[in-house]
Amino acid sequence: METRRHSCSHVLAAAVIKLFPKTKLGIGPAIENGFYYDFQFPKALEEKDLPKISAEMKQIIKKKLAFIKKEVTIEAAKKIFKDQPYKLELIKELAKEGNKKVSLYQTGDFIDLCAGPHVKNTGEIGHFKLASLAGAYWRGSEKNKMLTRVYGTCFSTEKELEKYLWQIEEAKKRDHRKLNQFLKLYFLSDDIGPGLATLLPNGTIIAEELEKWAKETEKKWGYTHVLTPHIAKEELFKKTGHIPYYAESMYPPMRMEEKGEGEKGVYYLKPMNCSMHCLVFKSQPRSYRDLPLRIAEYGTVYRYEKTGELFGLMRVRGPIHQNDAHIFCSEEQAEEEFQRVMALHQYYYDSLGLSKDDYYLSFAIRGKDDENKYLGDKKMWAKAEKITLAYIKKSKIPYEIEEGEAAFYGPKIDFNIKTVTGRVFSASTNQLDFFIPKAFGLKYTDKDGQEKTPVCVHRAPLGSHVRFLAFLTEHYAGVFPVWLSPVQTVIVPITEKQNDYGQKVANNLKGENIRAELDDRSKTTSAKIRDAELQKIPYILVVGDKEIKNKSINVRARGEKVLGEMALEKFIKLIQEDIDKKRQV
Amino acid sequence: METRRHSCSHVLAAAVIKLFPKTKLGIGPAIENGFYYDFQFPKALEEKDLPKISAEMKQIIKKKLAFIKKEVTIEAAKKIFKDQPYKLELIKELAKEGNKKVSLYQTGDFIDLCAGPHVKNTGEIGHFKLASLAGAYWRGSEKNKMLTRVYGTCFSTEKELEKYLWQIEEAKKRDHRKLNQFLKLYFLSDDIGPGLATLLPNGTIIAEELEKWAKETEKKWGYTHVLTPHIAKEELFKKTGHIPYYAESMYPPMRMEEKGEGEKGVYYLKPMNCSMHCLVFKSQPRSYRDLPLRIAEYGTVYRYEKTGELFGLMRVRGPIHQNDAHIFCSEEQAEEEFQRVMALHQYYYDSLGLSKDDYYLSFAIRGKDDENKYLGDKKMWAKAEKITLAYIKKSKIPYEIEEGEAAFYGPKIDFNIKTVTGRVFSASTNQLDFFIPKAFGLKYTDKDGQEKTPVCVHRAPLGSHVRFLAFLTEHYAGVFPVWLSPVQTVIVPITEKQNDYGQKVANNLKGENIRAELDDRSKTTSAKIRDAELQKIPYILVVGDKEIKNKSINVRARGEKVLGEMALEKFIKLIQEDIDKKRQV
Repeated sequence: METRRHSCSHVLAAAVIKLFPKTKLGIGPAIENGFYYDFQFPKALEEKDLPKISAEMKQIIKKKLAFIKKEVTIEAAKKIFKDQPYKLELIKELAKEGNKKVSLYQTGDFIDLCAGPHVKNTGEIGHFKLASLAGAYWRGSEKNKMLTRVYGTCFSTEKELEKYLWQIEEAKKRDHRKLNQFLKLYFLSDDIGPGLATLLPNGTIIAEELEKWAKETEKKWGYTHVLTPHIAKEELFKKTGHIPYYAESMYPPMRMEEKGEGEKGVYYLKPMNCSMHCLVFKSQPRSYRDLPLRIAEYGTVYRYEKTGELFGLMRVRGPIHQNDAHIFCSEEQAEEEFQRVMALHQYYYDSLGLSKDDYYLSFAIRGKDDENKYLGDKKMWAKAEKITLAYIKKSKIPYEIEEGEAAFYGPKIDFNIKTVTGRVFSASTNQLDFFIPKAFGLKYTDKDGQEKTPVCVHRAPLGSHVRFLAFLTEHYAGVFPVWLSPVQTVIVPITEKQNDYGQKVANNLKGENIRAELDDRSKTTSAKIRDAELQKIPYILVVGDKEIKNKSINVRARGEKVLGEMALEKFIKLIQEDIDKKRQV
Repeated sequence: METRRHSCSHVLAAAVIKLFPKTKLGIGPAIENGFYYDFQFPKALEEKDLPKISAEMKQIIKKKLAFIKKEVTIEAAKKIFKDQPYKLELIKELAKEGNKKVSLYQTGDFIDLCAGPHVKNTGEIGHFKLASLAGAYWRGSEKNKMLTRVYGTCFSTEKELEKYLWQIEEAKKRDHRKLNQFLKLYFLSDDIGPGLATLLPNGTIIAEELEKWAKETEKKWGYTHVLTPHIAKEELFKKTGHIPYYAESMYPPMRMEEKGEGEKGVYYLKPMNCSMHCLVFKSQPRSYRDLPLRIAEYGTVYRYEKTGELFGLMRVRGPIHQNDAHIFCSEEQAEEEFQRVMALHQYYYDSLGLSKDDYYLSFAIRGKDDENKYLGDKKMWAKAEKITLAYIKKSKIPYEIEEGEAAFYGPKIDFNIKTVTGRVFSASTNQLDFFIPKAFGLKYTDKDGQEKTPVCVHRAPLGSHVRFLAFLTEHYAGVFPVWLSPVQTVIVPITEKQNDYGQKVANNLKGENIRAELDDRSKTTSAKIRDAELQKIPYILVVGDKEIKNKSINVRARGEKVLGEMALEKFIKLIQEDIDKKRQV
């Protein structure tokens, strides 16, 4: 693919030279999903010029011109590119580096300075589209001249190209940062600090619905919940190994000496919850009867990400409310617990309407030559990797192996979801951990009276509130299923006369825990309906004199589906079923 | 009262000297609810000696001996106390301070060095009880000799004394730290840090029930919820005035420079949520239609309390999950909003079974000579104090005025609850605030198109999770109403044969969101019932062959109330009503 795309950039340059012969050429590499070429045009290029260039490129592709490689001396090259100052600069540099010869590629009349490789002829390039223009300094330095960069994309088949172009358009439309302007889910404020997210009422409703669902589900699956502090002494994080192995991702410390009260020691915001859950395990004597002990918490952690890496709600510094739990069990129970965690993921994904083709596992193991990045001995790692891989295979979920991506204390399994826009979203991280129970000296008394060390399964199926909210926003393109819709139904009185009745209907619905709002603005019915449709509210209930007389409502579902007049009780039943079954409308 | 109590300490000393003539006397002041006297006994005193001393004291009281004041020269005093080294030390000090004479009090044969005042005669002392013994260094310094401190309590009437003694006994029994050993609600761990509380599963259940209730109630009362970060830049807290006015109660800062990524600035854990809710207000343009805007959050704050002031869950450093909200409204709306906040408090207290005699308000205003402790101008304070006092009077809840206890940004109203043990528990703080909306430049567009500044009502009816949990534990003496009971019902199979049926019953109940547990230990039925009674579980469901045959259960309510055999459906209805109505059983 990269060869095709790079070859396509030559075709672009050939077409440009044909149409605008005085153009000076920069460079034209392949990039992810496409390519670009930097030019200095004799006259500024505009977006409207792109179709003309495209047409010329298609001609060249049709001709199936061969890519012919030539090696020439530095002197010969300088002659060939005598009117191309940027190429001359590159040739001089190659000479300085000790090269006697340089490599060129010729396609038809067009010759470019290029190391290759290329497809055999332009007929093999496939399907392309010129995407956009941008300014770019020559060689990325603002001391140099600003050139015009032409971006293009290129795929083997027209179908792939079209799918990609659709995804690009969808990704723009679905970007949670863009939808947020309209959905008002969150804000980031420099007054608080970069990457520190505040959930507004609409975002909070969704986060709390997710949390309620997760907690209820966990209760049914045998978890208990705890609430732990957000900060702890340095020593605790030394015990877990977060200091020094994870210190880079932690906020700077709070030094108690600064209080001047004689208190010493250093505190950190916690980056993970494991240490606290180990202390919960340790807070009383444990026996085999307590196992598996599944300790769950929407534990809130903070992570220091570099400002350049922050990205909307997808990558924040905090607060990261994690759907976290640690399962302490015997080694014999570990496999079953692990498979149950897998099953729990599948239950969540099914409920959210994700198909089994939409997610896969990545199995992150140690890098071979990087041992000082990890804690614990080789034997423990080998055991953990072997067992975990066996579990993964048994789960029958597709998986990839990623070397060098393990957590510092053990191999990890990520659940990755492919969104409709093609973006891969890492939803949740899970681990089988032999290290931490040992570090904390955790013990339970087994049936035979012997003291044994449990193993620990880390899991967080819904990841963090904010990341999952960002994912769901993009997944549903802001059209949330009824149970997650911040406003579930809006009541539209036809005239002011029906406002009182509308308020009564709204109150009735609120009494049934349905999020209902009355639109009593002095606007026309059709304007109010249009606004509600724009806001993607699942149900619009219109009320006029007829509805008052019949003690009814007139129901329109999202997407202009008219359900007509019905009794309020019937509608309550209908919407509650939507909520219970997590339906879209 | 203080005079009576101090006089009683003289009677104690007189009795001691009579019974143990060689005793050396320390000092004997009145303290809250009683008095003490420090002695150096010739032979170690034991608890069992106290009745003998009490009997001697009663004799002295019966005699109605007068307290006669005498002034004598230093020399004369030294002679009188020649065998009392501690008294001699005090006399020498008085001489050093320039006193020519010292004052003595005589009661019968007993003379003490004392400034008074006293009751006329021992008959006026009232009713006393010697409470306990403790070791105490002379003058509180560990360089000195350890004396024996005898504590006593004293009241005018026998009834008052008995009530106090009952309260002391109850307070010991109800102390949440003591009940916690058994209820397993929380733990404090030095591994995390002093005053940083972790809620265990039982405590978490109660905290989450309270939170769910508060959030549902707030929704019905027109609040919206948000989720804000736990940390923010220093500048934000400067804007609110927390720095410098509240800095003492904040954790030390996190300095971003330490990360070495070129990022500057200083972050703090937030001690209050107001600033973040102001930013939520400010996150979009507001009009009169948005007001009152009631922004609620279980906002988690951290406060640096000195280690000596930490006390179980009653006073922690964190995490303080506050039942917080800020109501932004026009000045005209403020009174109604304020009364609604009062009504909300009353609704909560009624639901928890607190009577109107159990709570009162304290109105905290500025201290007269302490202006640099407060923000804002005099006019604003005068206005806020006047309006708030008018609101309080209108609410008809009894109130006290506390000078010098205001928040740094405005007068505050505390709701205080008197617990059954006589302890006053400050449950919630409320404020009418003119300052913070101005500091943040908050504006709304009024009906007339003009930009106006809203006022802010701070409120937190249930205080913080942990404090309220401590209060409820003491209030209910650990016998929680059904909705708050960590385990609501336990199923007791008569033999192992009924374990399967018991499990089915438990699963059925769990399916209805009732917290049910199966007791399948191989113990006798009566032992299992006794354990459940000890754990104060509201309902015990015994199941034997008869119950299997009839598809029923045999119900015992807490406190050995036998309700007998009933269908499971009937029981579910019964317990759900208990839960809904927040009943005790």
